[in-house]
Amino acid sequence: MSDFWSSRTKKLEPYIPGEQPKDGSVFIKINTNECPYPPSPKVAEVIKNFSCDSLRLYPNPEAYDAKKTIADYYGLKIDEVFLGNGSDEVLAMAFAAFYDNEKTVNFADVTYSFYPVYCNMFDISFNYIPLLEDFSYDVEGFIKTVGGVVIANPNAPTSVAISLLDIERIVKNHKNDVVIIDEAYVDFGAESAIQLISKYDNLLIVQTMSKSRALAGMRIGFALGNKKLIEGMDRVKNSINSYTLDRLAIAVACAAIEDEEYFKEITGKIIKTREKTISSLKKLDFIILISSANFLFITNKNFEAKEFFEYLRKNGILVRYFNKPRLCDYLRVSIGTDEEMDVFIKITEAYCNEKF
Amino acid sequence: MSDFWSSRTKKLEPYIPGEQPKDGSVFIKINTNECPYPPSPKVAEVIKNFSCDSLRLYPNPEAYDAKKTIADYYGLKIDEVFLGNGSDEVLAMAFAAFYDNEKTVNFADVTYSFYPVYCNMFDISFNYIPLLEDFSYDVEGFIKTVGGVVIANPNAPTSVAISLLDIERIVKNHKNDVVIIDEAYVDFGAESAIQLISKYDNLLIVQTMSKSRALAGMRIGFALGNKKLIEGMDRVKNSINSYTLDRLAIAVACAAIEDEEYFKEITGKIIKTREKTISSLKKLDFIILISSANFLFITNKNFEAKEFFEYLRKNGILVRYFNKPRLCDYLRVSIGTDEEMDVFIKITEAYCNEKF
Repeated sequence: MSDFWSSRTKKLEPYIPGEQPKDGSVFIKINTNECPYPPSPKVAEVIKNFSCDSLRLYPNPEAYDAKKTIADYYGLKIDEVFLGNGSDEVLAMAFAAFYDNEKTVNFADVTYSFYPVYCNMFDISFNYIPLLEDFSYDVEGFIKTVGGVVIANPNAPTSVAISLLDIERIVKNHKNDVVIIDEAYVDFGAESAIQLISKYDNLLIVQTMSKSRALAGMRIGFALGNKKLIEGMDRVKNSINSYTLDRLAIAVACAAIEDEEYFKEITGKIIKTREKTISSLKKLDFIILISSANFLFITNKNFEAKEFFEYLRKNGILVRYFNKPRLCDYLRVSIGTDEEMDVFIKITEAYCNEKF
Repeated sequence: MSDFWSSRTKKLEPYIPGEQPKDGSVFIKINTNECPYPPSPKVAEVIKNFSCDSLRLYPNPEAYDAKKTIADYYGLKIDEVFLGNGSDEVLAMAFAAFYDNEKTVNFADVTYSFYPVYCNMFDISFNYIPLLEDFSYDVEGFIKTVGGVVIANPNAPTSVAISLLDIERIVKNHKNDVVIIDEAYVDFGAESAIQLISKYDNLLIVQTMSKSRALAGMRIGFALGNKKLIEGMDRVKNSINSYTLDRLAIAVACAAIEDEEYFKEITGKIIKTREKTISSLKKLDFIILISSANFLFITNKNFEAKEFFEYLRKNGILVRYFNKPRLCDYLRVSIGTDEEMDVFIKITEAYCNEKF
C-alpha cells in the first residue's frame, strides 16, 4: 500500500495469471491452456515479409483490416466487430461499457476469475449464480436473475459447455441487459452463439486468438454484437487508448483467420489428444468433467490434488491448481501434444502406483 | 446512445486521434507527430529473425526483457519501470492508479487533450491551471495548487518546454501527491526529469517509443518512478489485462533502445530540419512558438488558420488544426523529412503569395 495510490487502487484485487516459466525451462507447460502447436505458417510468412518501415506510423485505430477479415469470416458487418489487445482487455472494456453500480452483472461462482476483478476495477456490482453440484450452469438461476449476465462457454476452469438452446433462453429473458458469452474455448467443441447476434441486440460474443489460433503471444481478442454495443465499447476504448492493436498484430490477425484449413487441423488434433488423454486418465480412477475445451478438469478420490500438483511439478510438468473452495480438489490440465500427454500420463501412472 | 450502456459510458467524451489516411494515399502526413524515418534497422532484423512458433505462448506478463533493457539504459532498477501498450495506455493506468474524486489532478488548459478524457473515464476530479499568455506553463500556479499534477514536457500541441528547475520546484511542493511528467517529445530538445526519480518518490515520468524511436505502429510506452508508484500501476494493469505487450513488441522495444547511435542520428536530423523549417516560416511572417519537440505550433496574423489548413489539405499536405478556444488561430505541423518540409514550405509560399 502507498499513500500515493487512489482509493480505487487500494481496494483492487488484481488477477493472477498462470505461471509463465522462463522460455527454455524443462517444463511440459500444460498450465495456461496455450495451443501446443505453432500458429499458421501464413502468420510466419506475414511477419517475415512485414514492411518494418511502416512501424513509424500509427496503426489504423479501428484495426480496420482485421475487423473486415473477422466480419467477413463470420458473416457480420464491420460495425458489429470490436478488436482488442487479447480477450482480457476486450472483456474489461465490455464490463466498463455495459455494467455499473446499478446495472448489476451475474456470473457463476466458479468461472473465469477475471470477472470479479473487472467489477472491482470499474465499480460494478455483481452477483454469483453458483454452479450446480455437477459443475454445470444453473440455467434457471440465470434466467430468473435481474441484470446483465456473463457466461463462459465452455466454462473455465471446469471445461463444461452450455447448450445454445439454454443460452438463447437466458438471452431472451434479459432483453434489457447485455449478456456476454465468453467463447475463449468454443472452438474445441462447444456451440458458438454467433448465429444469435442478428436476433438479439443484447448479446455480445467475446473470442480470442490465443487458444485455437495459437496466438497467445500476439494479444488479439475480439467481440461480436449489435453495432450499438460495439459503439459503447469504442467509447470506452477511446477513453483509454486509441490504438490497442499494433500493425503486426493487425496483419497477423488477418493471416490467422484466413488459414481455415490449418485452424481445423490443429483444433482437430487437440480434440483427438484430449479424448485419448481422458481414456487413459479414466483407467487410473480419475473423475473428469465433460470437456468441450482444450483442457481437462480432473480429480481423483485417492489423493489430494495439491500433492499431485507438486509431484507433477517436481517431475517437470506444470499444470494449474486453484487453492479455492469447490476447486481445491481438482487440477486443470491443458491439452498438449500427443507426446507431452504421453509423458504426463506416464508420470501420473507412476504417482498412482506410488500411492497404492 | 443506447440503454444498454453503463452510466459511465453514457457520459464519456472519448479522445479523437489525428486523422490516419489509408496507407498509400498521396498526403504528406505531418499531422500526428510521427517520425519521418523508419525505426532502427535492428528492429527490422529482430522481426525478420523472430521465432514465430513462440507466439503460441503467452508473453512474459511483466515484459521482463524490455523492462530490464529500459532500466539498464536509464540507470534504474527493474521495479522502477512499467511498460504498456503505448504511452496513452500507460497514462490511463497512471491516472487510475494515483487520482480519484478526492485526489484531484491539475493540468494546463492547453495540453494533451487525453488528460480530461482519462479523468472522465475513471471519475477523477481535475482542475485547469491555464497556460500564461505566451503559452508557457504557469509555474507559480502549479506550485500553489493542491493535489496531483500532470505536465507534458515539452507541451503538446504547443511544443514549448518547461525547465528542469521549474519541474523540481513543482515536484518538491507536492510531496503528498503524484506529479506525472509526460515526456513523449522530450528527446527533441527538452530536459528529462529522470534524474530526479531517485530524489522524489512522488515523481512519475512517462515516455513513448512512438516518436523518437519511430515506433508509433508498435505501441510501446513506459513509465519510470519509485517502485511504490510502479506497484500501484501494476495493480491497475492486472485488473484490466495481464499481458499488454505482445512478444514481438517486447523484442522490438529492446532492439530500439539498444541502438543508441541510430536514435541520436534520427533525432538530430529532425532537430536540424525543424530549425531550417522555422527560419523559412519566419521569412513568411509566421509566429512560431519556441519548439523543443518534433513539431511546430504556428500562426500567421495575415490569414485564418482554418483556411490555410484546408488549402494545405487540398494540396496533399495533412497538418493538425484544433477547433478550440486559444488554439484555433494556430496549426500544429509535425517535422517530416527535409524533402517533405521543402514541399510544405513551397506550398505555404504559394498560399502567402495568393493572399497578398
